Amino acid sequence: MSTSPAPDPEPGHPASITSIAAEAGVSVPTVSKVLNGRPDVAAETRARVEGLIERSGYRRRRARQSSRPALVDLVFHEMNSVWATQIIRGVERAAAEERAAVVLSELGGAHRPPGEWFDDLLARRPLGVILVLAELDEEQRARLTARSIPFVFVDTAGEPPPGVPTVGSTNWAGGLAATRHLISLGHERIAVISGPTTVLCSRARVDGYRSALESGGIPVAPELVRYGDFYVNGGYSHGMDLLTRPDRPTAIFAGSDFQALGVMRAAGELGLSVPGDLSIVGYDDLPVTEWIGPGLTTVRQPLPEMAATAAQMVFTLARGERPAVERIDLATELVVRQSTAPPRG
Amino acid sequence: MSTSPAPDPEPGHPASITSIAAEAGVSVPTVSKVLNGRPDVAAETRARVEGLIERSGYRRRRARQSSRPALVDLVFHEMNSVWATQIIRGVERAAAEERAAVVLSELGGAHRPPGEWFDDLLARRPLGVILVLAELDEEQRARLTARSIPFVFVDTAGEPPPGVPTVGSTNWAGGLAATRHLISLGHERIAVISGPTTVLCSRARVDGYRSALESGGIPVAPELVRYGDFYVNGGYSHGMDLLTRPDRPTAIFAGSDFQALGVMRAAGELGLSVPGDLSIVGYDDLPVTEWIGPGLTTVRQPLPEMAATAAQMVFTLARGERPAVERIDLATELVVRQSTAPPRG
Repeated sequence: MSTSPAPDPEPGHPASITSIAAEAGVSVPTVSKVLNGRPDVAAETRARVEGLIERSGYRRRRARQSSRPALVDLVFHEMNSVWATQIIRGVERAAAEERAAVVLSELGGAHRPPGEWFDDLLARRPLGVILVLAELDEEQRARLTARSIPFVFVDTAGEPPPGVPTVGSTNWAGGLAATRHLISLGHERIAVISGPTTVLCSRARVDGYRSALESGGIPVAPELVRYGDFYVNGGYSHGMDLLTRPDRPTAIFAGSDFQALGVMRAAGELGLSVPGDLSIVGYDDLPVTEWIGPGLTTVRQPLPEMAATAAQMVFTLARGERPAVERIDLATELVVRQSTAPPRG
Repeated sequence: MSTSPAPDPEPGHPASITSIAAEAGVSVPTVSKVLNGRPDVAAETRARVEGLIERSGYRRRRARQSSRPALVDLVFHEMNSVWATQIIRGVERAAAEERAAVVLSELGGAHRPPGEWFDDLLARRPLGVILVLAELDEEQRARLTARSIPFVFVDTAGEPPPGVPTVGSTNWAGGLAATRHLISLGHERIAVISGPTTVLCSRARVDGYRSALESGGIPVAPELVRYGDFYVNGGYSHGMDLLTRPDRPTAIFAGSDFQALGVMRAAGELGLSVPGDLSIVGYDDLPVTEWIGPGLTTVRQPLPEMAATAAQMVFTLARGERPAVERIDLATELVVRQSTAPPRG
């Protein structure tokens, strides 16, 4: 009654499920169980079969018209702001076009063991996996590859492994544009508060900031370069520290709109007006920037488009095609509002 | 190899898949296809079988240990704020405990036809469905019931149909507490800005407001009772209108923290200080209230707990048990911060 799950090899690929079973010394149904992520296979057998599958270059053909409903997994390291909502909406939109449903997981906040979570992911056989600032170890990547489940990263924390499709945005250019805007207004003491040093995009934005200063003939003051978390408190505490210095900066470029809110709060508590005493540039262009006065000058990061692009790459890969480009950075854009002005004096 | 999907009737229930097939004049596999949401059944046949399933009181027994991975569907009417993130996290937490994955859909914003979306939902056979301010029509409810897929509403817009499990919060008590707090500070001209009149919780909060005024011996002024959308703009436009009246209110109770932000913005633009010239109470207690100064006095709505409770009800129902209570309202709580103070004068 059910469509048989036994997959055929692709034309041109000599490896078949039968030859893999023979080489592994197991039955064809056992190989099929491994491919389908069924738990009732001994760990050692599973590892042996997976290794053979990977080395053989075997690719299962996906029955796109199968009765099994199409799922795509969206995995966040942490999902605690409107930032995440923007990503979810982009993936939802792209998935709707493919008539796929979105399964959402949060790794950092979830109360489930990562190994169990990964086994369940394999068992539901998604069309593909989209990871947002979440990582996969080498074994997990190999297990997905062995099952022809493609995966795409959005905004990797570290350098993505070669050949792994990644969607990001032009962080370096964003940092450059924000800092150039402040220089063009006449600022010279410009601080930057970025995200954690361990996250690639934080470093790219600071490098853009440095380049803008250097090409403007302004020396980089190490005490004005800060790294912290991307949330309001990170902006608040660094902002407080920077703004209580005797030689306080006249402008601060924050690594996120939330950090910018924190800086704004610190300025408010110190009785400094924005943009009169302090210019502030944010990053992301989340709806939050519209809620508070003065309107925040910020670097727009196209989050829904990044997410939709990642989803489309997953669907392309799931059809057995290669995407045109494997590493895409969508353009950032400076949005000038009321939080920046020439320095006083 | 696979566990047979043919379900047995529950003890005490005379209807079986065989008797339903006989009565409908179709084969047993056809009834099974209807139960499994397979598309290859004529619409007329499907309707006849579903009608018989429903009338017969047939309940399939769920094979909880099946190889099919457990899914729970979380459906938003609209998902565009941190409000939604709080709900998602609550469901994620409860789903992790049951080792179920969360499938997320947004109906208002999704670019997929609702009929197609619902067919796909049936086809993936979730353990259950959680609906947030989203509705199901009678036919959809019948189709879920026929397949023993339970559904629970979080914060219904309209009056939930009898017998449909619902999780909400004590909106009336929240409106009462917020208004009593303002009265106790000495306010008499107190406005309320609530959500749309079509949403049940908006009306409950306004009724709580009215009760507090009446029991405080303060007449309700119709021009101070406003309904709008729950977002920042709704608060801003009603706030502007209220605060430019010659007899402007000295306090405003807003229907959401976002509306409260909009009111705060309107006050700022009119040069009114908070809480000096105007006291503001919000609703929800989202993280957003911590970002802006002065800290917002608000009514805490336990969103993650509401979501987790709804998910637990779904899992209870999926096991074929009845939840202890079918209609749960979790308690709201007034959180007093800096945005409220005695009126001037």
